[in-house]
Amino acid sequence: MTGNGLLFIVSGFSGAGKGTIMKELLRRYDNYALSVSATTRKPRPGEVHGKDYFFISREEFEKMIREDALIEYATYAGNYYGTPRKYVEEMMAAGKDVILEIEVQGAQKIKEKMPETERIFVTPPSAEELRRRLTDRGSETEEEIEKRLRRAVEEASYMPLYDFILVNDDLDRAVTELHGLVCTVHDRSVHRQDFNREIKKQLSDMMRGGN
Amino acid sequence: MTGNGLLFIVSGFSGAGKGTIMKELLRRYDNYALSVSATTRKPRPGEVHGKDYFFISREEFEKMIREDALIEYATYAGNYYGTPRKYVEEMMAAGKDVILEIEVQGAQKIKEKMPETERIFVTPPSAEELRRRLTDRGSETEEEIEKRLRRAVEEASYMPLYDFILVNDDLDRAVTELHGLVCTVHDRSVHRQDFNREIKKQLSDMMRGGN
Repeated sequence: MTGNGLLFIVSGFSGAGKGTIMKELLRRYDNYALSVSATTRKPRPGEVHGKDYFFISREEFEKMIREDALIEYATYAGNYYGTPRKYVEEMMAAGKDVILEIEVQGAQKIKEKMPETERIFVTPPSAEELRRRLTDRGSETEEEIEKRLRRAVEEASYMPLYDFILVNDDLDRAVTELHGLVCTVHDRSVHRQDFNREIKKQLSDMMRGGN
Repeated sequence: MTGNGLLFIVSGFSGAGKGTIMKELLRRYDNYALSVSATTRKPRPGEVHGKDYFFISREEFEKMIREDALIEYATYAGNYYGTPRKYVEEMMAAGKDVILEIEVQGAQKIKEKMPETERIFVTPPSAEELRRRLTDRGSETEEEIEKRLRRAVEEASYMPLYDFILVNDDLDRAVTELHGLVCTVHDRSVHRQDFNREIKKQLSDMMRGGN
């Protein structure tokens, strides 16, 4: 992979395995950075500022909105959540492919603002498998599982809006496939414009050289 | 990879290594078929009908034109060359990813007719490397090499029209990269429509089931 880092959006059903895939992707390859969101909600025990979230005040958040310092933001349960532009741009400039894990509506907002962003939707191979994974976690009540499944029905409507659908059947394969996807996107002609110009110039110069 | 086969166009400078990449791709993976062109020119010694070309008469070729049985065709040095639609469609229906090696103008004609076709341009990392490879072949006169390089200057103008630019720096890496590209294209949402519909239906049914 050459050139600057690119931005990728990853969404998917709760229980699709996004978190595990991300963790393994970062462990295996050194070209990735995860985008860190800003929020006005209070940190939960164990959450680390700058890793889990940038925990900021309502005043600071609203200042960022006014200064267009967020790629997107939304409110949820009375708190702001948003994606700081600066962190994403710094990581990309440093050559990192930035992955932004975000829900389906935020994903579409970002694509409007940054059309070269590729959106990837992670899904298990079937609805039954999704339910099985949610149940196997053992950390949620039957009611919470049903709520997540109902939300999944809504989210499924957004799948056709994504650029890619990543079926997470097997963790190892899903990680390899996602990394392959990122490498392929770097080969897109639109991201090779400098190379295209350069080799055209080299060829022209060579021919003008009178050989 | 799931679903039907897809169509890929591969073009590139003469000397970029397209032929070697294709040969190695077919040797390593079993999901590929190369499209075979039809031509009215006479077979050269060693050329096999149905492998190198479909060698047909001018009457047969013109009948195919009239019946829209060619995805594209062109004339060169007084002979017809074209891509029979039937062979490509049969291979795709059989689940093969069909690769069509074709020059830059034909590539654009096919994209117009079949917009889901992905176009890949194969290039060495630099003009100097292209010249070196052409020279190292040892099979061509200096004049022929110059002619190919002049043609490369023209072809380079078409690079921004391609979907992907594949830099062939190392054969093994280029083959892996091309295969990864094909796998990624299968993950495009537009090729996952059946899956998207199916999982949405499964989720809706599960929720309607009253669980």
